[in-house]
Amino acid sequence: MSGPYPFERRFGAFPIGDGRAEFRVWAPRRERVRLRIGDREHELEPAGHGVLEAIVEARPGEDYAFETEGIEFPDPASRWQANGLRGRSRLLDTGAFRWTDDGFEAPALRDSVLYELHVGTFTREGTFDAAIEHLRGLRELGVTTIELMPLAAFPGRHGWGYDGVYISAAHDPYGGPEGLQRFVDAAHSEGLAVLLDVVYNHVGASGVQGLECFGPYFTSHYETPWGQAMNFDDRDSDAVREWVLQSAEQWIRDFHIDGLRLDAIHAIVDSNPEHLVAAVCRRVHAADPRAIVIAESGLNDPNVITRWGCDGVWADDFHHALRVLLTGDREGYYAEFGTLAALAKVLHRPHFHDGTYSSFRGRRFGAKADAVAPEAFVVFSSNHDQVGNRALGDRLPVAARPLAAFMTLLAPFTPMLFQGEEHGERAPFQFFSDHIDEEIATATREGRRREFAAFAEFAGEEVPDPQDEATFLASKLTREGEPAGLRELYAALLRARAELPPGDATDIAFDEHAGWLRLRRGPYTLLANFSQRDVHVPVEDTLETVLATHHATLEPGFVVLPGLSGALLK
Amino acid sequence: MSGPYPFERRFGAFPIGDGRAEFRVWAPRRERVRLRIGDREHELEPAGHGVLEAIVEARPGEDYAFETEGIEFPDPASRWQANGLRGRSRLLDTGAFRWTDDGFEAPALRDSVLYELHVGTFTREGTFDAAIEHLRGLRELGVTTIELMPLAAFPGRHGWGYDGVYISAAHDPYGGPEGLQRFVDAAHSEGLAVLLDVVYNHVGASGVQGLECFGPYFTSHYETPWGQAMNFDDRDSDAVREWVLQSAEQWIRDFHIDGLRLDAIHAIVDSNPEHLVAAVCRRVHAADPRAIVIAESGLNDPNVITRWGCDGVWADDFHHALRVLLTGDREGYYAEFGTLAALAKVLHRPHFHDGTYSSFRGRRFGAKADAVAPEAFVVFSSNHDQVGNRALGDRLPVAARPLAAFMTLLAPFTPMLFQGEEHGERAPFQFFSDHIDEEIATATREGRRREFAAFAEFAGEEVPDPQDEATFLASKLTREGEPAGLRELYAALLRARAELPPGDATDIAFDEHAGWLRLRRGPYTLLANFSQRDVHVPVEDTLETVLATHHATLEPGFVVLPGLSGALLK
Repeated sequence: MSGPYPFERRFGAFPIGDGRAEFRVWAPRRERVRLRIGDREHELEPAGHGVLEAIVEARPGEDYAFETEGIEFPDPASRWQANGLRGRSRLLDTGAFRWTDDGFEAPALRDSVLYELHVGTFTREGTFDAAIEHLRGLRELGVTTIELMPLAAFPGRHGWGYDGVYISAAHDPYGGPEGLQRFVDAAHSEGLAVLLDVVYNHVGASGVQGLECFGPYFTSHYETPWGQAMNFDDRDSDAVREWVLQSAEQWIRDFHIDGLRLDAIHAIVDSNPEHLVAAVCRRVHAADPRAIVIAESGLNDPNVITRWGCDGVWADDFHHALRVLLTGDREGYYAEFGTLAALAKVLHRPHFHDGTYSSFRGRRFGAKADAVAPEAFVVFSSNHDQVGNRALGDRLPVAARPLAAFMTLLAPFTPMLFQGEEHGERAPFQFFSDHIDEEIATATREGRRREFAAFAEFAGEEVPDPQDEATFLASKLTREGEPAGLRELYAALLRARAELPPGDATDIAFDEHAGWLRLRRGPYTLLANFSQRDVHVPVEDTLETVLATHHATLEPGFVVLPGLSGALLK
Repeated sequence: MSGPYPFERRFGAFPIGDGRAEFRVWAPRRERVRLRIGDREHELEPAGHGVLEAIVEARPGEDYAFETEGIEFPDPASRWQANGLRGRSRLLDTGAFRWTDDGFEAPALRDSVLYELHVGTFTREGTFDAAIEHLRGLRELGVTTIELMPLAAFPGRHGWGYDGVYISAAHDPYGGPEGLQRFVDAAHSEGLAVLLDVVYNHVGASGVQGLECFGPYFTSHYETPWGQAMNFDDRDSDAVREWVLQSAEQWIRDFHIDGLRLDAIHAIVDSNPEHLVAAVCRRVHAADPRAIVIAESGLNDPNVITRWGCDGVWADDFHHALRVLLTGDREGYYAEFGTLAALAKVLHRPHFHDGTYSSFRGRRFGAKADAVAPEAFVVFSSNHDQVGNRALGDRLPVAARPLAAFMTLLAPFTPMLFQGEEHGERAPFQFFSDHIDEEIATATREGRRREFAAFAEFAGEEVPDPQDEATFLASKLTREGEPAGLRELYAALLRARAELPPGDATDIAFDEHAGWLRLRRGPYTLLANFSQRDVHVPVEDTLETVLATHHATLEPGFVVLPGLSGALLK
């Protein structure tokens, strides 16, 4: 029997003391489900509303599965997949961890500097525990907040994580849920907050059957670029929404995560009066009023902040405007950028398209964002997508790195670094996967080859095979990079940033032909030269250099800036 | 070449004086389009942005078509399809009509009584002109506003009109655009406003090719129950949006229509910051600040009013709560209703589901609507769907009609009558069509048969064939009905309604077992008995009967109401 899912009932498996645990699965498509734990077997009892449940003897660390018609499936609300994506789930007692972070308070977004971190490639070991030793260095650099790339249990050992399935289970090869608790606790001890990238717009294709067998997790009414859309507004969607919302809450409550980054919310279509994203914001903020929600929206729609209640939003347009000036790349969606006028516009609010026509999309796009505070926009000069979705996963050209950092870290928005950029990491970040289904593996491999066929022919280079472990290994940080002194520049920029007053950039001026751009932030003046040659940038006489990426020469009435450099004056 | 559609350019054909006319078609899929008019032929010139245009000699009344690759197609923005759905368009000069409605002002929604009218069945002739002679009677009854069922050119001669294609062309068999102008002018002369039901969520399948050949009018990203979704947010959607928006405007501007009823907006999926429905509201209100937009939403979402800017919304839940009490029907979505508690809830705000679980939909549905004024809800005890989507298209049982009218017309919402209900019309309103494509005709016929197979077997009755002209003819008003005196009751109820103060119903009380319901509207008390037997309804002693559907006996402390009756006291 189906019906209103009782919100107070939690999905999944929870120890309740006394050597027992409660198990609950929403399985409106199954008349009968058995719990198998160790070599014991228990019938789950129907509790109405499509719910089946039992309280049985079970110890944390024991493996369990739900069996129906002779087949074992993991718990859809699994919090620990210690035996692979299709193996048994493991009973977790999150309450067993001894937290030491009592005094920690996550910073507000306006005081935050984010650092996007992929656990698998951040260290040789590719684990939470191995990552801990690098936290102090990040804090010393000026980072305030780690943003972990998705770690919901995904197929195989390594991957970017955007094809996760069990949205409440920290990937076991990274160290599993207990490893995540240790990592968050260590970060908090270092004074660092931790955000988590979560994917609610689809699940990896490898996991569709394992969810679909229990209930209608998917809908055919809408499409996503990555597979079936989740059922957030069709028959029986209450429980699917709740499955997501309970997962969002548990990261905050049981793992002390300080906020979420919601992947690709433009691919979440929901006709409910309260959109799923708004519901996630409401539940996360209720779980912890200081927790924040940052959306990857791709809609240039201020309603994401003003109506749905997100605290922040990724600002891809800032990246594109900056990158194209620095590199001259003009493929795909970069084609619309490439002028200082574009950069000047996104330095006000990073909606390059704010109702204007986008030739890339072939339509008017976006809306003005003046009502949104600048710190709500998360900006970056690289991230996993902008690096990893290139054919070779190569990072920004060396010569462009100092100015890229200068513009991003001193902009009036909330900056995010992508792991390794702070030292000019020499390893690429390539697209890699470890699919366990041959069909999906082949499709992924061939899709990648097709996408970059023209590049491969032109450059005479092979596009890395995502399924080859070497591709993953090549993407691990070496912690060697160039140009020399880049890390010190990042540290200096972040120290300088802390001195800048919050609020809009003002007096934005530029010379498209000469290649310079100038703006003010309170008493500070930022100068940037996007050309390859020295330029003379007109300024008031009374300024002094606070910081420069390269040597800037102050003359009466102007500053001489070398090619691809920036200077902060006061 | 595609690009930003220049909004200031109007689609279609317009006389510009001097014996000439301008023709403009958005045809990004065609390199070359010729205008054929009479036996003349002109090359359309590319004007950029996918637009092709020409100014040529042409007289109003001349037939024209756009020819591409040897095939003639009607103008997608046709304002007159005088030669059938696939025939040539006719050049229309809307400015030639001599309006006599200078002094007319449409009433606000709170002062409105709507009347849903289907031109084809309203009279024997089935034309605008024939309908005119009945306008005075409606005005005398107390109707303020005619709501015309869709009349955008649709396949064949007769039909409900929801499979229209040329959204700016008044159906020619009804009298075409000039007939519509005469009708609206006559209505205004009688003091009646005119609303128009418009369908922007899909077009009839017969017309897909005639639009698709010019440009991407459709998208595969979303589904509708009736065919391909319109392309409102994908590549090249600006022009499709503009095609809709210019059409909405022209009804207001050139036909003096006083507002629109938007069909099934829940089937319009649009990811833009300004939803298409909000854009329609903005453009309609700009064209005439008094014009109103009423949505058929089916979402129970107050945002339709409070954010998108619609003035009103159809309130199906009010109908269902009332109907099920009156008739005991419990099929399909009626199953959730049938209690006085449900009616009492919708008498406050007609969102029966306001975040509560809907067993029909299998999920939580809707949101509270307390922030929406009561007059924004359009309520009815019958409409084209609730009558016509029954197997036999039969109207409310005779015995239920007086109380149905009593509840609907004295409710705190904006009432709408369905043509003929005011005299208890004996003709049904059945589902009829006149499809010109054999495949669509067969699918329609068989779909209907399948839908009501169980009914046909149970009742031993044939479901009428929608394609049989007899079905259409049987649905024409006879202007004979029962019970006797119903029309006088409607007139009395509408006179009484005009005396009621605006604002919420208060002190709603009921006895589920006995079957009575009581509420107050300012100094007035409404009593209703939904049982088949006399009931004693407790009231204050001092009230007097203002109006009653049947004889109500006032006794000290209570009123005796006969079965299925209502009384208004003061």
